[in-house]
Amino acid sequence: MKVGILGATGAVGKEMLKVMEEKNLPVDELRLFASSRSAGKVMKFHDREIIIEVADEHSFDGLDYVLGAVENEQSKMYAPMIQKAKAIYIDNSSAFRLDPDVPLVVPQINPDALKNHQGIIANPNCVTIIGLMACAPLHQVNPIKRIIASSYQAVSGAGAAGMDELLKQMNDLHEDREPVAEVFSHQIAYNLIPQIGGFDEVGYTSEEMKFQNESRKILSDSELKVSCTCVRVPVLRSHSISMNIELTNEMSVQQAKELINAFEGVQVSETYPTPMETSNQDTVFVGRIRKDLTCDKGLALWCCGDQIRKGAASNAIEIMEALMK
Amino acid sequence: MKVGILGATGAVGKEMLKVMEEKNLPVDELRLFASSRSAGKVMKFHDREIIIEVADEHSFDGLDYVLGAVENEQSKMYAPMIQKAKAIYIDNSSAFRLDPDVPLVVPQINPDALKNHQGIIANPNCVTIIGLMACAPLHQVNPIKRIIASSYQAVSGAGAAGMDELLKQMNDLHEDREPVAEVFSHQIAYNLIPQIGGFDEVGYTSEEMKFQNESRKILSDSELKVSCTCVRVPVLRSHSISMNIELTNEMSVQQAKELINAFEGVQVSETYPTPMETSNQDTVFVGRIRKDLTCDKGLALWCCGDQIRKGAASNAIEIMEALMK
Repeated sequence: MKVGILGATGAVGKEMLKVMEEKNLPVDELRLFASSRSAGKVMKFHDREIIIEVADEHSFDGLDYVLGAVENEQSKMYAPMIQKAKAIYIDNSSAFRLDPDVPLVVPQINPDALKNHQGIIANPNCVTIIGLMACAPLHQVNPIKRIIASSYQAVSGAGAAGMDELLKQMNDLHEDREPVAEVFSHQIAYNLIPQIGGFDEVGYTSEEMKFQNESRKILSDSELKVSCTCVRVPVLRSHSISMNIELTNEMSVQQAKELINAFEGVQVSETYPTPMETSNQDTVFVGRIRKDLTCDKGLALWCCGDQIRKGAASNAIEIMEALMK
Repeated sequence: MKVGILGATGAVGKEMLKVMEEKNLPVDELRLFASSRSAGKVMKFHDREIIIEVADEHSFDGLDYVLGAVENEQSKMYAPMIQKAKAIYIDNSSAFRLDPDVPLVVPQINPDALKNHQGIIANPNCVTIIGLMACAPLHQVNPIKRIIASSYQAVSGAGAAGMDELLKQMNDLHEDREPVAEVFSHQIAYNLIPQIGGFDEVGYTSEEMKFQNESRKILSDSELKVSCTCVRVPVLRSHSISMNIELTNEMSVQQAKELINAFEGVQVSETYPTPMETSNQDTVFVGRIRKDLTCDKGLALWCCGDQIRKGAASNAIEIMEALMK
């Protein structure tokens, strides 16, 4: 198997390498691409040393899969080159997610969507993946009609630069320097920022609308209603989501727990998950499952999952593994 | 006016002193009470030096008002002594909040409830005060039927010890020591804890149920339904709440903004509030007001308010000021 990674030096790109190593995937050839700033540097994969390249139109020749961990603009630029080279592009950006010709896939939830790919497969938004891993087990037996969600999103969602900024601000405060906000619009150390992405005309952010729009596509349910508030919190890498869901029929807490525990990739916590305990692993954890006191057919729950792993890198690798079968 | 403060050395007690100074209240005599550990120490009020005492059954004689910033058990112990001394007890604990003989008051929302007091007035829970300051302006013209809330609660809710623990954990991490969790059940630095208070038999915490039960009493609406998820976040002193509210009739975002801005003590932010920007002041700030995408009669919003100020000390002082009139 011959694999390329676009954006190999970022937080998600590095994690893709790590996940492929951990899973011991049969990678015969690996090409790593990044910006000219990183070109010529070396990254290790098992005991191999791989020189980072700047991708051009010939870079993808002979590859089976290209994993994308770059911004939308770059993704749109490279996608035609990857398609021309007949490699399959698994893209972590939002560039193609709502394109009707592009499957949007969480392998545990809608693996069948992979059958119809035309060379590009999109990896969903991190909140969508983590939130749906908690919802899908319930939805499959008792369709969810409405989700009200408030997220608690780690700084890793803004990449390695986001994590560096939180740590640097904490360091500055510790050493009595004024913290500087560059990646985020406000100081994030000891603070919260209730905006991720730009605002639409009715006041929702792009991040908030992804949860509704991507969930509709993944669950093949254009009627699903989602009202989401996305908030950046001073946490390093696991996203948490507080959700109130309304199902078609009443569901007991016990049944919800059983359905979640029977589903691959998600697990009910004995007490409740915290971002720290759920970091650096692929499983999404769910806790605080209880009746929604405002709605007979409703449940409230709390879930946590590593944003860089299941929210991005691991889901992309799982898509590649599903295609390999 | 003769005033006593129970728990004067805690985060809320200290802030009560500060707020009375800032407001230049006509305090002729001030008695400060705390545990034996602090007895004999001196606290300043304007240019007066006041020696801290341990309260006993004669401590309250001659006082007009006693402000309570102690735990439930102590509050229950001192309340009869304060009543016997014919002082009015304004209690920040939850000991008497749901007692039908005790008014539960946010002066901007239900000042009339003060008329029927029998010597004890309860200060509501901090999430309830901050959340209702955002809701009440809307509720008064278009009753709210349902609130789904997720809180982002500062460590100050656990008192000075909570703030110290977050800062100490950050310091430990900075200096490569293992952080220790004593006040909170888990590490709070770079983490979230989705539990505040103990669990009831259906899985809600005491903190979560306060928002429903206290809101029903303050708004005189026993039908109000609230489903709340309370989460501790690594923020120092402002609480934030993400709320989806369902009103009796449809309400435009513009009308909601106008109603909030016309209400005393609460204000719409130009963009959105963050906990850092809203700390150290009494105003509750509201932002992100938009239609709830899951409900025609619903609005979503985000509010922030200082937990020690409006969430506790300032509201208690405002109750005292309302009684003085």
